[in-house]
Amino acid sequence: MEKWDGNEGTSAFDMPEWMIQFADQKQEFNKRPTKIGRRSLSRSISQSSTDSYSSAASYTDSSDDETSPRDKQQKNSKGSSDFCVKNIKQAEFGRREIEIAEQEMPALMALRKRAQGEKPLAGAKIVGCTHITAQTAVLMETLGALGAQCRWAACNIYSTLNEVAAALAESGFPVFAWKGESEDDFWWCIDRCVNVEGWQPNMILDDGGDLTHWIYKKYPNMFKKIKGIVEESVTGVHRLYQLSKAGKLCVPAMNVNDSVTKQKFDNLYCCRESILDGLKRTTDMMFGGKQVVVCGYGEVGKGCCAALKAMGSIVYVTEIDPICALQACMDGFRLVKLNEVIRQVDIVITCTGNKNVVTREHLDRMKNSCIVCNMGHSNTEIDVASLRTPELTWERVRSQVDHVIWPDGKRIVLLAEGRLLNLSCSTVPTFVLSITATTQALALIELYNAPEGRYKQDVYLLPKKMDEYVASLHLPTFDAHLTELTDEQAKYLGLNKNGPFKPNYYRY
Amino acid sequence: MEKWDGNEGTSAFDMPEWMIQFADQKQEFNKRPTKIGRRSLSRSISQSSTDSYSSAASYTDSSDDETSPRDKQQKNSKGSSDFCVKNIKQAEFGRREIEIAEQEMPALMALRKRAQGEKPLAGAKIVGCTHITAQTAVLMETLGALGAQCRWAACNIYSTLNEVAAALAESGFPVFAWKGESEDDFWWCIDRCVNVEGWQPNMILDDGGDLTHWIYKKYPNMFKKIKGIVEESVTGVHRLYQLSKAGKLCVPAMNVNDSVTKQKFDNLYCCRESILDGLKRTTDMMFGGKQVVVCGYGEVGKGCCAALKAMGSIVYVTEIDPICALQACMDGFRLVKLNEVIRQVDIVITCTGNKNVVTREHLDRMKNSCIVCNMGHSNTEIDVASLRTPELTWERVRSQVDHVIWPDGKRIVLLAEGRLLNLSCSTVPTFVLSITATTQALALIELYNAPEGRYKQDVYLLPKKMDEYVASLHLPTFDAHLTELTDEQAKYLGLNKNGPFKPNYYRY
Amino acid sequence: MEKWDGNEGTSAFDMPEWMIQFADQKQEFNKRPTKIGRRSLSRSISQSSTDSYSSAASYTDSSDDETSPRDKQQKNSKGSSDFCVKNIKQAEFGRREIEIAEQEMPALMALRKRAQGEKPLAGAKIVGCTHITAQTAVLMETLGALGAQCRWAACNIYSTLNEVAAALAESGFPVFAWKGESEDDFWWCIDRCVNVEGWQPNMILDDGGDLTHWIYKKYPNMFKKIKGIVEESVTGVHRLYQLSKAGKLCVPAMNVNDSVTKQKFDNLYCCRESILDGLKRTTDMMFGGKQVVVCGYGEVGKGCCAALKAMGSIVYVTEIDPICALQACMDGFRLVKLNEVIRQVDIVITCTGNKNVVTREHLDRMKNSCIVCNMGHSNTEIDVASLRTPELTWERVRSQVDHVIWPDGKRIVLLAEGRLLNLSCSTVPTFVLSITATTQALALIELYNAPEGRYKQDVYLLPKKMDEYVASLHLPTFDAHLTELTDEQAKYLGLNKNGPFKPNYYRY
Amino acid sequence: MEKWDGNEGTSAFDMPEWMIQFADQKQEFNKRPTKIGRRSLSRSISQSSTDSYSSAASYTDSSDDETSPRDKQQKNSKGSSDFCVKNIKQAEFGRREIEIAEQEMPALMALRKRAQGEKPLAGAKIVGCTHITAQTAVLMETLGALGAQCRWAACNIYSTLNEVAAALAESGFPVFAWKGESEDDFWWCIDRCVNVEGWQPNMILDDGGDLTHWIYKKYPNMFKKIKGIVEESVTGVHRLYQLSKAGKLCVPAMNVNDSVTKQKFDNLYCCRESILDGLKRTTDMMFGGKQVVVCGYGEVGKGCCAALKAMGSIVYVTEIDPICALQACMDGFRLVKLNEVIRQVDIVITCTGNKNVVTREHLDRMKNSCIVCNMGHSNTEIDVASLRTPELTWERVRSQVDHVIWPDGKRIVLLAEGRLLNLSCSTVPTFVLSITATTQALALIELYNAPEGRYKQDVYLLPKKMDEYVASLHLPTFDAHLTELTDEQAKYLGLNKNGPFKPNYYRY
Repeated sequence: MEKWDGNEGTSAFDMPEWMIQFADQKQEFNKRPTKIGRRSLSRSISQSSTDSYSSAASYTDSSDDETSPRDKQQKNSKGSSDFCVKNIKQAEFGRREIEIAEQEMPALMALRKRAQGEKPLAGAKIVGCTHITAQTAVLMETLGALGAQCRWAACNIYSTLNEVAAALAESGFPVFAWKGESEDDFWWCIDRCVNVEGWQPNMILDDGGDLTHWIYKKYPNMFKKIKGIVEESVTGVHRLYQLSKAGKLCVPAMNVNDSVTKQKFDNLYCCRESILDGLKRTTDMMFGGKQVVVCGYGEVGKGCCAALKAMGSIVYVTEIDPICALQACMDGFRLVKLNEVIRQVDIVITCTGNKNVVTREHLDRMKNSCIVCNMGHSNTEIDVASLRTPELTWERVRSQVDHVIWPDGKRIVLLAEGRLLNLSCSTVPTFVLSITATTQALALIELYNAPEGRYKQDVYLLPKKMDEYVASLHLPTFDAHLTELTDEQAKYLGLNKNGPFKPNYYRY
Repeated sequence: MEKWDGNEGTSAFDMPEWMIQFADQKQEFNKRPTKIGRRSLSRSISQSSTDSYSSAASYTDSSDDETSPRDKQQKNSKGSSDFCVKNIKQAEFGRREIEIAEQEMPALMALRKRAQGEKPLAGAKIVGCTHITAQTAVLMETLGALGAQCRWAACNIYSTLNEVAAALAESGFPVFAWKGESEDDFWWCIDRCVNVEGWQPNMILDDGGDLTHWIYKKYPNMFKKIKGIVEESVTGVHRLYQLSKAGKLCVPAMNVNDSVTKQKFDNLYCCRESILDGLKRTTDMMFGGKQVVVCGYGEVGKGCCAALKAMGSIVYVTEIDPICALQACMDGFRLVKLNEVIRQVDIVITCTGNKNVVTREHLDRMKNSCIVCNMGHSNTEIDVASLRTPELTWERVRSQVDHVIWPDGKRIVLLAEGRLLNLSCSTVPTFVLSITATTQALALIELYNAPEGRYKQDVYLLPKKMDEYVASLHLPTFDAHLTELTDEQAKYLGLNKNGPFKPNYYRY
Repeated sequence: MEKWDGNEGTSAFDMPEWMIQFADQKQEFNKRPTKIGRRSLSRSISQSSTDSYSSAASYTDSSDDETSPRDKQQKNSKGSSDFCVKNIKQAEFGRREIEIAEQEMPALMALRKRAQGEKPLAGAKIVGCTHITAQTAVLMETLGALGAQCRWAACNIYSTLNEVAAALAESGFPVFAWKGESEDDFWWCIDRCVNVEGWQPNMILDDGGDLTHWIYKKYPNMFKKIKGIVEESVTGVHRLYQLSKAGKLCVPAMNVNDSVTKQKFDNLYCCRESILDGLKRTTDMMFGGKQVVVCGYGEVGKGCCAALKAMGSIVYVTEIDPICALQACMDGFRLVKLNEVIRQVDIVITCTGNKNVVTREHLDRMKNSCIVCNMGHSNTEIDVASLRTPELTWERVRSQVDHVIWPDGKRIVLLAEGRLLNLSCSTVPTFVLSITATTQALALIELYNAPEGRYKQDVYLLPKKMDEYVASLHLPTFDAHLTELTDEQAKYLGLNKNGPFKPNYYRY
Repeated sequence: MEKWDGNEGTSAFDMPEWMIQFADQKQEFNKRPTKIGRRSLSRSISQSSTDSYSSAASYTDSSDDETSPRDKQQKNSKGSSDFCVKNIKQAEFGRREIEIAEQEMPALMALRKRAQGEKPLAGAKIVGCTHITAQTAVLMETLGALGAQCRWAACNIYSTLNEVAAALAESGFPVFAWKGESEDDFWWCIDRCVNVEGWQPNMILDDGGDLTHWIYKKYPNMFKKIKGIVEESVTGVHRLYQLSKAGKLCVPAMNVNDSVTKQKFDNLYCCRESILDGLKRTTDMMFGGKQVVVCGYGEVGKGCCAALKAMGSIVYVTEIDPICALQACMDGFRLVKLNEVIRQVDIVITCTGNKNVVTREHLDRMKNSCIVCNMGHSNTEIDVASLRTPELTWERVRSQVDHVIWPDGKRIVLLAEGRLLNLSCSTVPTFVLSITATTQALALIELYNAPEGRYKQDVYLLPKKMDEYVASLHLPTFDAHLTELTDEQAKYLGLNKNGPFKPNYYRY
């Protein structure tokens, strides 16, 4: 069986839920699929309700307007009403957030500059469904500068930054999204992006697969004109592979989730920082001298382990894969079974992609004040449900921090109720989002411009050359100077001077 | 064009030399191809002429017997004379070396234990051509224990450890190898392994492709009975891909050079240690505070950089590949062009697989006492030839250490004349060789037992499951305890509980 | 001239301000001295106005009671009104905070346990002036358990946690402190601790020297009965050395600021974590690949550099002291003058204790988006005043984060207006405060119980044996097992088996 | 009791031996005291008999001249015979070694340059007793350039590099030293330096205290003219403190062993590198994944732990001092008792300065192939004597490497028979020796030029300002640029712009 891995120690996807969903289509509009593996929410989103640092977010929070945007009549300053946002008057605040984001997204700005001459997306009609954030706005406006027309909905009912949506609407983008949509709103917004008179989309940019799914169900004929799908999430990519396997994928699709730059940044490098950030913001704990067990030594686990070791923690690792296990050994971590250390550790971190890695039995044996959190790709890694029993008392001590109290007084500190720590309790730097957004833009350009026949009705990885190009666009941020091959060297190596520089199986 | 990469920053092979060799077959017996990319020589070999620590080696060195082994009449204690080694009387010394090696090759010893029940290589007739070392001896005796018959030659005219060859001959292995063979001896030894009455090999274990090449040229019909080739070296693997591309490969071949365990151990982890060892043994330099430039940020470069940074050096990196370049940035290294730092650095290390990375122009601009060395896979990275000009004086200050002196008195410290530093000036731990040898054994078992049709006339990577198995056999060394999936978890992940655990494109 | 150092790269104190203050005594009640070198504020204090995580803090914040505590009539449940706090009704909330803190202050709890048998502070009448936090409360209640009577005021007009003060008042401690005292309130509170009928203090616990100063000015005769002063802050210690030098110190004083455990924890280990925390919470920046210059390589600078290097930043160091400079070199940092790198760095961090280390000229030359912050001991390191000129625009983008905008659009990101980053924008783990509080308790015990003549009218460091004792009380937290000397070994080493184990000049 | 610490975790000296020696003076000439705590032998010395890399050393080794130097008649090219060396004809070889050393001793060369104007040692008559190495030669010739006359003997009967001694004799230095002196030779050489007609030394440079001791015993009146003693070793410094305590020290002495630069370089930074070097050269082991216990967390232990952790080992620490123990915890090491981990570790390293830290009982419980070595300051840390029992077999497998074999076949790998690993099996970079030699030169200058009364008959540490000066002389090697205080800053800090910059108790 083909399977997919989420770059975690043991990697996987929530197969049963997915299969149920397709099987039981009557419920699909009532129960939105859980997104997994997403790390790309910016601060503004993830923190808006809990963190008073962000002035923009607090502006939104203070809004007490209870009217549904669908019931409002709004126009932007140019008279257009082809959008649906919370409050068009927040556009100015959103514009400032977008401008700040632009400063940290050098690659997209570079693409815009190059687009002054040619318009690689001229004629493209892109329908998108992603988180609506300042960074997405920079992407959308870049796509516009490259020649594309866009219509956009949100891929998550909570994640829209209202003022950014307003700014996009003000500058002419048909955006349909607000924070706190109902399920019905969610699908309504998507439909408003797809099904408009005089609009025939020819490209799809999706994050989670809901937009793609909607078109499959409602407007399957639309695929005749669609040149390709670009999908970013683990969940959405898995859906595409399923479709492909079932022979139902009728356009080329590009899996940008597995490009090298995205994987290494979103997982290894980003988690190396966010594990520390997430733990500090929630618990103010000192890392030095603490005993930590990290479950799973994939990219996420590697990042967590490296950071905690560097801060003076003593780190143990659990693994099911002997290769990753051997890497953990060589990197200086004791490889143990969870049972062996569960009584002594101060922190338990899951990064496996698996389910029930930390069971009630483990939780019962932890010592007082042990911190438990999840950095993996779904909320199933810690069996939180097992803690919701009458003999245990839950005490919410801070936002995202619960003390679960045993009858004998023992307290376990559970973070984010077992959901992704770095999604819930830390932020993702714009720089990381820049890499993802650039990858998406290049994938759209590639699929849109590819000559007939280059891509068939299958799922593709981003061509290595474009992956390398994304990386090269981010080097100037670090004032990094790449060396060029001489003609003689290129010949010696049998390489084109402009890349690609590695075979496909190269592991980096 | 298909190309191959040697796991270095930019990776390559010596195309011209190779093509010349095939083109000009009349010379092939006079000029042996240069082996590249080999990191697997044990201490005993690489150090025997320079290091008095190894008593075994010094025993050999003190031998003043000038008679060619081909002219000697020798018999082992059982009366057999089907071998050709330097001196069968050295067998006892060699046996001790083999016994010491056995202690650090737990995986092969575990295979032997399992072989007590079944003999997966029963009926296998393996002809081998590798370095003849204590570690190879452990491999050969393991193959024997698994049921195979073997005949063996050396893949390098200098690398044979005579006493080990003697020990193998004494215990009944037809071994044809000694240290200091002539070119004619080299091919004679190979021929003696292949072309013996009553012997029809059905498996090939090669390191560099010479054995395979010989059979292609001399006994092409032999391939009808051969079930497969296992090849370990960069050079040999490249030859096989060339044959495959040209439609001339007539048996399945397994590329064990690119298995995960081999790559990570031979390159990243091993070089992380050997760069320090090689520099210390040759120069006794202090690493703290030194400015170092590492050319190439592949696995080898990553290992070198990590080690030197940890020891307090200030490390700069050069790269041609933007993805590796971005990794260098995120790992905390300034990415520069060599020209930018060449005047200020104390050490220059090449790990590119490229040629002329350090040119005479660079060398002219280095500061006094700058150390220059190569950790990449061939001796072309530093343009050493450009230093052999009349105005420069060479002074050999130690074994493997030359001072090249400019007219103004400036001295450059050139190590190993630009050849591989870790091959020439440090040692490779047996533990690393154990991984390689286990991989070879498992590849032989797989090819020999594969059902008809599983492998065609092509070059294959080791199946991931076997790669994982190699890793698992080495975990006990670290007292590492692997976690097993529960049935429920395996189902959730869509995995077999015994692996493989990752998709093929997983990067580790 | 005797001088004092604040454990930073170049360390110092604000001599002029101090001298002015003594010279111009008429103003002293109007202008409170600036406290320097304090790192020991807990989260609850430093974050209370900016961080919504702390439920306790937000409780306080929501209080809209504008009446001055001095004008209120309050009684605790036992009928006592010998205290002055914001609102005695907050006692329950404060008690919960105290209980949480107790869990992380194992050493004080251990002292309480031992005190069940003997009361080393029986008869002690301690007047204290420190930050009023949960951790201080644990200290005060420990002193009480050891037999002491206490009266307490706050050493800072902003730092009192009102609910903790209420909890202390409820349990019978005469506490005079609230958040947001006026200058007049400040001295009134202190006076209420000192000058009460029937109360003659015999021990002083001070943090900053204000309490000591007040007694010197107002009630000099009180010193006849006082057995000693324990002082924690850089400023207060400096004042004591000045008094001693001037021959005016009339009781023994103990400088607990310079004990080993306090120095290493408060500076090296704590800053290693808080630099990352402070930068992340304010800017959400990514550390990987960033170029950072750290001014000063004392304990604080060492901590900052180690953490940022570990997270993949490229770190430069400036120093004035050649020994610290050489350490920076050996630890792998380029030693530069600030001018050499100011144009290229992404972050500037000061840890010098010096003034005007970052000047307007430096600020003018920084690149766009450069982040500037201070981890040293006063707000003078960055010349923030020079930025308050008409041509520059200040934009407050988040709490503690200002964009200073140049006419050409360049933005500098200034954190905490140049005040201590870790005081303003991160938190200090309770574990660190536990060490400080334990040190204070032991110093009080030592001075109170010292036989006549052991301490003269001078400033003393904590005896090494007590420093070692503080450390040993914290080892159980890490499940750390100390080895004991055998009799034979102790004799061999010429040591007492119970310590002290090192000569006074040992540097750790 | 006053005690002294050797910068190790628990630090000490061999009291009994020392006391016996003074008590039993009849034996003193027959039995030379063991030197302890010395880390400053250069490669050429320590490796000469075991390592064929050093051409100079091998030249010496091949000498088969059996005549005692005392029986030879030798003259240098200027006709002088006031020396006694192995072979004056080796002078040219020695000169080359000296010239190479000069390149890495920038501070002494800088002192020579400054001496062109003034001669701070004009009139000084220095008698020296140190190891005779290329680095010492650079020191001696520097002292000469500064105006001093010198006579020199060796402080160790094995450590003299004969060709260097010859080179010094050739250039006019009265040197009395050769490799392989008898005990009688040893004292004869010292006497020849002290007791010559027309020579009245006024300065002593000693390493181990033997020279000082000799003068005390034989020529006590000589001290009337002696301005001071500079002593470098732990042993010698201890002797001086004993003399001082007994009221018998009759001239000022300077303890240069405890200067900051020397301590940090010789112990922390040097051991960080030499532990890896020593283990690799002897065992070729792989560090990654190995479990190591380091006994003692002083400077040496800190260096060993940091290096091994960086190379991927899992490191445990034992300590007796709770402060060092707490540091180990915060640095990320599990603090254990040796018994707790002795069965599982792959390597045991002692750095305590204590005796019998590793006992026979521990050795009995180690697992097969466990490596045991000592980095502390004497050979007593491992109870090697306990292994010399009939039931254990010793097998010398390499120079400095013994297998000790238990009856059941278990082998322990004992390095250097428990003597200092880095002295025996690795080398000390010239750069480290440069710091020591510069410190010695400056101490001589200070004592020789100090105004009457600055130093009394006591033992002094090097003034901090000179310690800082030594550091500053080594910064150019790293192209390190020190920042200078402005006048305003110096005033603010209360510091002289030229230092000293720290109080004496500063810990660095």
